Amino acid sequence: MGKRIITIGEVMMRLAACDHQRFLQTDRYDVHFGGAEANVAISLAQLGQETVHITAFPNHDLGKAACNYLSRYGVDTSHITYLNQGRLGLYFHETGSMQRSSRIIYDRFGSSFSLLQEHQLSWDAIFEDAHWLHWTGITPALSETAAHLCLTAIIKAKEKGITVSGDINYRRNLWQYGKQPLDIMPELIDKTDVIIAGLTDFENCMAIKEDNFEAACREAQTKFQGITTIATTKRDSISASEQKLSALLYHNTKVYPSKSYEMTGIIDRIGGGDAFMAGLIYGLLYKDHQEALEFALAASVLKHAVIGDANLVTVEEIEALVIGKNTGRLLR
Amino acid sequence: MGKRIITIGEVMMRLAACDHQRFLQTDRYDVHFGGAEANVAISLAQLGQETVHITAFPNHDLGKAACNYLSRYGVDTSHITYLNQGRLGLYFHETGSMQRSSRIIYDRFGSSFSLLQEHQLSWDAIFEDAHWLHWTGITPALSETAAHLCLTAIIKAKEKGITVSGDINYRRNLWQYGKQPLDIMPELIDKTDVIIAGLTDFENCMAIKEDNFEAACREAQTKFQGITTIATTKRDSISASEQKLSALLYHNTKVYPSKSYEMTGIIDRIGGGDAFMAGLIYGLLYKDHQEALEFALAASVLKHAVIGDANLVTVEEIEALVIGKNTGRLLR
Amino acid sequence: MGKRIITIGEVMMRLAACDHQRFLQTDRYDVHFGGAEANVAISLAQLGQETVHITAFPNHDLGKAACNYLSRYGVDTSHITYLNQGRLGLYFHETGSMQRSSRIIYDRFGSSFSLLQEHQLSWDAIFEDAHWLHWTGITPALSETAAHLCLTAIIKAKEKGITVSGDINYRRNLWQYGKQPLDIMPELIDKTDVIIAGLTDFENCMAIKEDNFEAACREAQTKFQGITTIATTKRDSISASEQKLSALLYHNTKVYPSKSYEMTGIIDRIGGGDAFMAGLIYGLLYKDHQEALEFALAASVLKHAVIGDANLVTVEEIEALVIGKNTGRLLR
Amino acid sequence: MGKRIITIGEVMMRLAACDHQRFLQTDRYDVHFGGAEANVAISLAQLGQETVHITAFPNHDLGKAACNYLSRYGVDTSHITYLNQGRLGLYFHETGSMQRSSRIIYDRFGSSFSLLQEHQLSWDAIFEDAHWLHWTGITPALSETAAHLCLTAIIKAKEKGITVSGDINYRRNLWQYGKQPLDIMPELIDKTDVIIAGLTDFENCMAIKEDNFEAACREAQTKFQGITTIATTKRDSISASEQKLSALLYHNTKVYPSKSYEMTGIIDRIGGGDAFMAGLIYGLLYKDHQEALEFALAASVLKHAVIGDANLVTVEEIEALVIGKNTGRLLR
Amino acid sequence: MGKRIITIGEVMMRLAACDHQRFLQTDRYDVHFGGAEANVAISLAQLGQETVHITAFPNHDLGKAACNYLSRYGVDTSHITYLNQGRLGLYFHETGSMQRSSRIIYDRFGSSFSLLQEHQLSWDAIFEDAHWLHWTGITPALSETAAHLCLTAIIKAKEKGITVSGDINYRRNLWQYGKQPLDIMPELIDKTDVIIAGLTDFENCMAIKEDNFEAACREAQTKFQGITTIATTKRDSISASEQKLSALLYHNTKVYPSKSYEMTGIIDRIGGGDAFMAGLIYGLLYKDHQEALEFALAASVLKHAVIGDANLVTVEEIEALVIGKNTGRLLR
Amino acid sequence: MGKRIITIGEVMMRLAACDHQRFLQTDRYDVHFGGAEANVAISLAQLGQETVHITAFPNHDLGKAACNYLSRYGVDTSHITYLNQGRLGLYFHETGSMQRSSRIIYDRFGSSFSLLQEHQLSWDAIFEDAHWLHWTGITPALSETAAHLCLTAIIKAKEKGITVSGDINYRRNLWQYGKQPLDIMPELIDKTDVIIAGLTDFENCMAIKEDNFEAACREAQTKFQGITTIATTKRDSISASEQKLSALLYHNTKVYPSKSYEMTGIIDRIGGGDAFMAGLIYGLLYKDHQEALEFALAASVLKHAVIGDANLVTVEEIEALVIGKNTGRLLR
Repeated sequence: MGKRIITIGEVMMRLAACDHQRFLQTDRYDVHFGGAEANVAISLAQLGQETVHITAFPNHDLGKAACNYLSRYGVDTSHITYLNQGRLGLYFHETGSMQRSSRIIYDRFGSSFSLLQEHQLSWDAIFEDAHWLHWTGITPALSETAAHLCLTAIIKAKEKGITVSGDINYRRNLWQYGKQPLDIMPELIDKTDVIIAGLTDFENCMAIKEDNFEAACREAQTKFQGITTIATTKRDSISASEQKLSALLYHNTKVYPSKSYEMTGIIDRIGGGDAFMAGLIYGLLYKDHQEALEFALAASVLKHAVIGDANLVTVEEIEALVIGKNTGRLLR
Repeated sequence: MGKRIITIGEVMMRLAACDHQRFLQTDRYDVHFGGAEANVAISLAQLGQETVHITAFPNHDLGKAACNYLSRYGVDTSHITYLNQGRLGLYFHETGSMQRSSRIIYDRFGSSFSLLQEHQLSWDAIFEDAHWLHWTGITPALSETAAHLCLTAIIKAKEKGITVSGDINYRRNLWQYGKQPLDIMPELIDKTDVIIAGLTDFENCMAIKEDNFEAACREAQTKFQGITTIATTKRDSISASEQKLSALLYHNTKVYPSKSYEMTGIIDRIGGGDAFMAGLIYGLLYKDHQEALEFALAASVLKHAVIGDANLVTVEEIEALVIGKNTGRLLR
Repeated sequence: MGKRIITIGEVMMRLAACDHQRFLQTDRYDVHFGGAEANVAISLAQLGQETVHITAFPNHDLGKAACNYLSRYGVDTSHITYLNQGRLGLYFHETGSMQRSSRIIYDRFGSSFSLLQEHQLSWDAIFEDAHWLHWTGITPALSETAAHLCLTAIIKAKEKGITVSGDINYRRNLWQYGKQPLDIMPELIDKTDVIIAGLTDFENCMAIKEDNFEAACREAQTKFQGITTIATTKRDSISASEQKLSALLYHNTKVYPSKSYEMTGIIDRIGGGDAFMAGLIYGLLYKDHQEALEFALAASVLKHAVIGDANLVTVEEIEALVIGKNTGRLLR
Repeated sequence: MGKRIITIGEVMMRLAACDHQRFLQTDRYDVHFGGAEANVAISLAQLGQETVHITAFPNHDLGKAACNYLSRYGVDTSHITYLNQGRLGLYFHETGSMQRSSRIIYDRFGSSFSLLQEHQLSWDAIFEDAHWLHWTGITPALSETAAHLCLTAIIKAKEKGITVSGDINYRRNLWQYGKQPLDIMPELIDKTDVIIAGLTDFENCMAIKEDNFEAACREAQTKFQGITTIATTKRDSISASEQKLSALLYHNTKVYPSKSYEMTGIIDRIGGGDAFMAGLIYGLLYKDHQEALEFALAASVLKHAVIGDANLVTVEEIEALVIGKNTGRLLR
Repeated sequence: MGKRIITIGEVMMRLAACDHQRFLQTDRYDVHFGGAEANVAISLAQLGQETVHITAFPNHDLGKAACNYLSRYGVDTSHITYLNQGRLGLYFHETGSMQRSSRIIYDRFGSSFSLLQEHQLSWDAIFEDAHWLHWTGITPALSETAAHLCLTAIIKAKEKGITVSGDINYRRNLWQYGKQPLDIMPELIDKTDVIIAGLTDFENCMAIKEDNFEAACREAQTKFQGITTIATTKRDSISASEQKLSALLYHNTKVYPSKSYEMTGIIDRIGGGDAFMAGLIYGLLYKDHQEALEFALAASVLKHAVIGDANLVTVEEIEALVIGKNTGRLLR
Repeated sequence: MGKRIITIGEVMMRLAACDHQRFLQTDRYDVHFGGAEANVAISLAQLGQETVHITAFPNHDLGKAACNYLSRYGVDTSHITYLNQGRLGLYFHETGSMQRSSRIIYDRFGSSFSLLQEHQLSWDAIFEDAHWLHWTGITPALSETAAHLCLTAIIKAKEKGITVSGDINYRRNLWQYGKQPLDIMPELIDKTDVIIAGLTDFENCMAIKEDNFEAACREAQTKFQGITTIATTKRDSISASEQKLSALLYHNTKVYPSKSYEMTGIIDRIGGGDAFMAGLIYGLLYKDHQEALEFALAASVLKHAVIGDANLVTVEEIEALVIGKNTGRLLR
């Protein structure tokens, strides 16, 4: 069953307008469930890892359906909490095509997860035998309670010698509870080993203004001594269905570049970054740094061909893409 | 175009699990829009009346889609307000069958409508040439702002000599902003000409505890001198798909009974009461009291055969049912 | 392969609003193909007979799709004509439920079939080895050309000693080309052995005004000496989904009554009469008169449980219903 | 999490023709997964029990999808085996309506489960802390290997003092590997505490020919000393959508009768017996015998309103039906 | 609400084979409504203009559904006429892909609109406060009545000093009522300020044979003195899903060229020209000529990413594409 | 009706995960029917030829549905045999996209066709007036019985002077009944006039190891004197939705090259080779060798734009693509 990996974060119901219809047209929404951290958990479960997701759901059947979704795809849900307070976060999704952009309307405030408190979790049971904890910058942006919960998780993980990764993932529209990212994020980042961050994230969450990734990484490693590895992806958006993707990995003062993929006929780009993160965790656990980066990027590319928030692909499929085998063929 | 009728109230998106699936099963939701008052507006528009709905929507495409839904079915939406605050209220619906109940999970707190303020509306334009104003007990239950808005509408209508109807419609799960129904409702009811109320409504919103409709009506007419007419429906629920429906109308100290209908193979019972209300308004405008009651009840019966919240049937169809013509036939 | 049976008539595309939606609601139509005579042909093909349908389609892919539908269900389409004139007749269908009626909006004028001329068919090849010809009162109602075509078919069949059946099926909304039913129908009926007719049909197409079936039959047999057998069905419509069905057969001065079936949860009643006709033809070919009637009626009952215009059931299924075996069970 | 209950048996993919279409019509199949024993496991999971299902799947994504289905609905799948031999059993389902029967075409021979061998399972881990083992007569009918596996499971359970239940469920079309039911079943039944059996099962699997349930039970208890409790359901089939259901329980020489339910508008009757079995296990664990029987029957009734093979209802819903509360209402 | 713009023309129901199926395959049609002029009206309504569409529908629910479609998307339908004559025009659509072409089968003859007469409209009310009238070459091609209606509208608009635009849009398959384009079109064009015309249109409707746009425009301006502005689009069709689009605008002896867009993954190209027309009207009302052209072209490009006949995009989306912002991104 | 062409082979039901979902996600399968030889038969029927398919189906409604599918698309099914043994072969299909491959899971062992015996067919009736027999290398790979049946068909065809074509189509996963391809295939190939073979086929089925097509053809023509013509296609797979296709034809010592097509936005590549084969048969019957090759290749390209296993395109559409006319346009 691979290694035990803990993720923590909000899970939302995605309501997706189908058949390329716009919000104004659709009379039907397809249901998916996702969240930046749960997407990582589901993806890693497909890669054979034992993943445990920490979250809270409202105590009704929509919360139960969200939980069942995680179970269906192999995530251990035994540490999920049902609360009588709060709601299930939602987001509505309109799939772009050609030059028309994809759009998301969030309806996530007041979620049960944003109300989940440290004492409601069995931390020792959660972290028993665990190898990795993963968090993202979305959690501390939701509420003061959530920010505190995230910090608690990181501290407890570090106490037990567990590797911690964080996807900085700055979102301007969140952070509405009175704190600014720079009030909160530095403390979290400082205790994190592996981060994903782009230049905007460096600036907003680490107060590092640089115009290239390598320089930003050097400065980050100086400021935040816990960080050992930083990665980022680069996306060129020609249209909603045609994009290029590559990535960079910084480790031990060295920058590793990746291949670049042309993606045409994109099915669903939501969760592309989370698929990269899941691939990177897997790669760092089982491969060297260059291989880890290529694995992570190939995982992310395949995600764009998978509908839904999480990356339902196997190690074999990712490794085949890395070496250019079977690309787009008909496998009988 | 019939008469100008004003309705005021929240409009929600209904997300309906399809094909008889339970919340735990569905991966698709059908979209309808509805609200107790807007359902009345849409239904009356099908009956040839000029209906104007007053509400507020969030200023994004989900709000726009809700508004377009009203336009599609002939409601004048020119007095609808778009706010940058609040969200679109939602409710999730699971259709029962046989002995399994239908269920609704509401997710409606914080709607834009609950934030709509009196000064944001052009009252004179709204009521120009209007014959009727309709409100329900849901609006004052949403927020103090909404309760005040409802009162304002009623007062302005009465000032202009417009008939006012109210569906008392007590909902225990609402009323969470600190006021109790008896703090608010009596003042609204006192200025209302026509109400729909069952025994629970009499008790909770008028402090009238009686065990039969006629006695409650007599007492109500004593306490609330504006009331001229009171109606109620009676439903016997054998199963989710098999029910009986009848109704009573109180006017001028007299109780009018109705026929009773057996409904088997019910398609969608949501909005059955609103269809009755719409039918009653039409009936009171154009027919005598006994005819109005039978028209209202037949309208409500037909609603159970129409999917969605509002009653998309015509005067001809309702009148045919009243006289027992064409029932369930194949009309070529 | 059973016996060779010829049917002649228009085939329309049915566009059916799905999921119980009304015309005003649907954004999707399910496609079926049907016509009173083609329904008989398809049904008889399921009963193991060799059926040949005579019609004309416009020479484009909608006509081809209609033709393929007949082929799919085992009808010989080798005598179907493609014309560069005319269109494919259509009808739109809204399925009723409960007390709400089902409705059809026809859009069938100007069909290719209504333009099909006698000389465009290979009559000798069509009737070679044939045992039966079936026509309905819809064909002579379409156009003068169609009325003439129908007469030609009947005359040629009689010349070859082939049994002829006709479903009188009077439709007030047709007959728009200047002739009245009584101008045309008597000559056709006079050459027909087996007819289906209700009291309205007797009056409008045979000028026989009686208030009971037996008396009408006696008079018909006096007026039209070719007639040997007359049948009719009786439907009690409680609602769109709950009806009762029984039938009568007149032969040789005797009236045979049938069982009566209660039908609840009706799926699709269109083509119920054509299913009866197909069952009757099969019954008269292979069974005695009482058995033929019961077979025809049971076939018609089962049709109400089959979606689409034609009756996709087997001899075994019909015979099981006649003896009350397996009714509504789960057959593994 | 309730009690640990072990079930063992084949899981098939159900391919269900949708929208009331017949096999000859459908161009789409809805996917469910089910099997008599897995249905019990899923149902008990909804009732709050910790269920573990033992089976084998082919080692490809269809097997994985079947396994994920069990996980989704809360069944512990950690003891499921993936084999490189065998296939996923399938069954095709056509939903009947009115007098038209439902039909199943099985395509289940050669399944991976029928090849699963005793030594491929970790019996001690499976039965650790377990309270109950459930098997059905389908497993010994599949293959000699499966019959042996079933016997092994029962013996090991009895050794550990675990209660054993068996649904005798005789199926004539299985038993094709050379053994007869009476060669195999008596040994299994003899070690079983609680059985479900109808008169046909008594005759074919226990060589008990009686014409009433009580007499058969008495004789069974004499022949098979391990049996303590026997139950059966009685179904009257008016049509595919209208049936009556009641049940009997024999325990300690006493026969307990149940209420009788009228079921109209049946959604899906497959798994009705398994829902009864699951309800009975729950009832026998937590209630007295009469209550257990009523609980089991109400569970089975609700199953007929739930699409899919397993009974996705809660203890609260079943108990409400037992006391006649909320039947078919709209719960807000 | 922007400016009041009047459009006049036939509205058809589009029946679109779904999921890339061919006419021969589909058993389901998706419903859209469209017509060259109504598409302009709907598109301009999304751009914030007050649009009024003039047409006629048959007096049944298909006509009502078409009318509701216009209302839903913000078009004023108060001047639409319901006639007891004529039918709703239809067209069937098969979406091409790759090298396989898209196809339309029209079934539009005999529409209610083609029978609509001048005296059935309230011209003064229609044109009150109007800024613009738009017509296309399809209307005069339908019937002599329609040609006369179109001329009347243009004359009355000019009398009131309203700008008139016309999309010449020559269709060979129409014009079946005995008149030729050159009998009718010159008089209409002569009173029109802004036209869209390609070289085929110049030749067939204006008797101008030139092999380049500029020369044709010069000659047109000489012949038709009312014309001030002429535009055209140029499409390169690599496959059904990959095309290039650019445009030209002639005004005041000057030709303005546009950018060229590569469109890959086209969703629906029907109405691309009407989206250009709507964009051009908006542009000419609010922008200079070069900006108007770029706005119109960008609008048309976005239409190819929107399903249905009309262009459901906003001014903001079009302007973003003009400046290359957000192209194909994920907007949260 | 063109020429009579006989095809022989297994027909499977394809269960296709829809809407780009993976096997792990889908809860619905779309149904198609196909098989390498039946695909050729259906395709040739669309090209106006009289095709007769020889196969066997299990004697239940799934077999009947498969047979009806062939009838629907114009194939003569009068020589199809229903057996009480065996099952309907199935395959599950997951459509790839971008770099994610398409996948097939076969579930075809034990089909009725693999049990069909020579004496169960009326060979003289089958081959009466026939011009062509087509077989593929899949049939001899299924079972010894099927291999013998295939040989019988070829021998009988050659006796009657009928042209024989074979698509060698080596599949490693079949051939599980104890024989190797080289035990069986040479005898079949030796009696075949026209083959399709790639280098893998030459090696595995003809023991010809060459690294280019021309050399392999020369050697094949030496070894197998019946062969007159050999063709092959060449596919470059950039991704699941973007590929290049070209072809070669060898005849009379000469190699004819074809154009190369870029295919983007591929809808369904299954049956691409069978479409080529059908086009080649048509081409060799009606055109010269170069034209035949181009026709076959264009047919195959268009197949990639058609959903389902067979190529539902006309001669006109293929010829238009050969000359580059109408490519991807909107044909009204």
